[in-house]
Amino acid sequence: MATILILGAGVMGSALAVPAADNGNQVRLVGTPLDGDIVAALQRPGGIHPKLDAPLPGTVRPMQFDALRSEHIEEADFVVIGVSSPGIDWAAAQIDRLMTAPRPVAFVTKGLVGDGAGLRTYAQSVPPLIPRMTSFIGIGGPCIARELANRWPTDCVYACSDVTAAERFAGAMRTGYYRLSVTDDVTGVEACAALKNFFAIGVSAMQTRYPDTVRNTATKNPTAATFNQACREMAVLCERLGGRRDTAFDLAGIGDLQVTVGGGRNSRLGHGLGMGRRASQIMATELAGETVEGIDTARALAVLLNDETTGGGLPRSEFPVARAIITAILEDLPLSD
Amino acid sequence: MATILILGAGVMGSALAVPAADNGNQVRLVGTPLDGDIVAALQRPGGIHPKLDAPLPGTVRPMQFDALRSEHIEEADFVVIGVSSPGIDWAAAQIDRLMTAPRPVAFVTKGLVGDGAGLRTYAQSVPPLIPRMTSFIGIGGPCIARELANRWPTDCVYACSDVTAAERFAGAMRTGYYRLSVTDDVTGVEACAALKNFFAIGVSAMQTRYPDTVRNTATKNPTAATFNQACREMAVLCERLGGRRDTAFDLAGIGDLQVTVGGGRNSRLGHGLGMGRRASQIMATELAGETVEGIDTARALAVLLNDETTGGGLPRSEFPVARAIITAILEDLPLSD
Repeated sequence: MATILILGAGVMGSALAVPAADNGNQVRLVGTPLDGDIVAALQRPGGIHPKLDAPLPGTVRPMQFDALRSEHIEEADFVVIGVSSPGIDWAAAQIDRLMTAPRPVAFVTKGLVGDGAGLRTYAQSVPPLIPRMTSFIGIGGPCIARELANRWPTDCVYACSDVTAAERFAGAMRTGYYRLSVTDDVTGVEACAALKNFFAIGVSAMQTRYPDTVRNTATKNPTAATFNQACREMAVLCERLGGRRDTAFDLAGIGDLQVTVGGGRNSRLGHGLGMGRRASQIMATELAGETVEGIDTARALAVLLNDETTGGGLPRSEFPVARAIITAILEDLPLSD
Repeated sequence: MATILILGAGVMGSALAVPAADNGNQVRLVGTPLDGDIVAALQRPGGIHPKLDAPLPGTVRPMQFDALRSEHIEEADFVVIGVSSPGIDWAAAQIDRLMTAPRPVAFVTKGLVGDGAGLRTYAQSVPPLIPRMTSFIGIGGPCIARELANRWPTDCVYACSDVTAAERFAGAMRTGYYRLSVTDDVTGVEACAALKNFFAIGVSAMQTRYPDTVRNTATKNPTAATFNQACREMAVLCERLGGRRDTAFDLAGIGDLQVTVGGGRNSRLGHGLGMGRRASQIMATELAGETVEGIDTARALAVLLNDETTGGGLPRSEFPVARAIITAILEDLPLSD
């Protein structure tokens, strides 16, 4: 039995509390300042998370952010960051400020960081922000939070350059319905987890672009062709970012792309693009005010794909899906096939 | 411009006539004795294939089987076999009987052949049956025939140990909507094309096993987990059968599994198994009289997976999806997770 502190009471942070508590761990679920209403709801007797449709196990202790102190981090064996990607710097700063004793930290937050040094995953960019963190553990794989919270069978992968640290945390979290494998390719898992949001835009677009009007369904060949091409491109980009090719063809890549296509905000953007609309129009209407993580990835990738100085390995013709998405989003043009 | 003779006027053989004719080739579409009604329908003015919802290009020449002569094979640059798997031996015998001059033959028919020498793909078992065949070309990838016949974008792969022969035929067939790559891993393409029918049974079962009754949809995590595990197993089996691992992670593997899940006869069997029904019951009712190709593959694979004498490489624990499907089908037991 371990003590686990989760920062972020959105859907994914809260969902992870379910297997954590089912496994007999002590679980503290700390909202961010944006999660105040959720934590208040969870603190009421019989409280249900507004977006999960399921009560959390009674042993989970919800807590408002302003009550969080260093001793809470200190009593935890594992810290989990479950904020959305725009909050990653804030979350890292809070953990750094409050972490007085070295602890491993696991991340469900995903993204790519572009800077002068090129494109990096959180596995590279976050550790310097939390010097006392003993291990960066990346969580990847096909996991819709609400389904995990309802204990439907879910396979995920925990990644850490120190694979024994990944296995220690997986050992604390693994249940009959939350089946975990481990890998040392943390860069690959982090890269794929960010890239899948981006590629889901392009694959989802094919679900609306070619409707089968005779049978009143979506066609399947164009979606499968684009899914397959997206996997090819994800594998090359994964390697380029320092991960292994095989990681793209496993849970964090093809598995996660599978659940991301057809649902969620990235897919809704893709469905709009597939119908011939412009990204600016979609973001100003049904996605107004929403975080669409694939858009940030598009911006970061554009630098990499268009950087002629880096030379070989990223020829224009090899990334038809990535380039079509980038052009549609950044130049606000109709999505090409 | 080439002359292409297609044997088999079912959905896939007929669908291939569309890009073939659009590309300016001379196309002769020869029904099997079972396709008599289809050919008769196609021969009427404005005739439409009963299962494709689309007229074939006017230049396609439909022909009944009993009119087929050696000279028709002789005038063809390429022969295509588009029968269903139970007809493969018959089709090979007819082509062998009628082929007086050496010709390349392409196959959309897929299956595995189990015999004393172990498990083989058609790429190994068929060439000895047609000694005059110059090249065995395997056709793989995510292609629902009706969608190809309607010219929706479709990516496929043509495979031949002599890759220039694959490219020659691909060059004759490739159109703007029928996008073709080539590979020399014909064994891998043939293995994956057969295996995907089998694995689609297990993945499709997850679409019905865990319904989300609150939101009245299917859950996605269990399907994605099983899809991913099926891809892992398909890659190992592909190598075991003599193909390359990478082939399973491309059009003939993950791409084709993607379109096979959720539609077609293998998926209907899977959907029934997912609801807790027995295979014998499903095959006696809604699938009565139908060919479910994944069942034959299950029989063939069972020999391979249970052959203790072959030793290493196929440990029991590594094939949870394959073993669950085999047990459900061959022992007529409820499908385990």
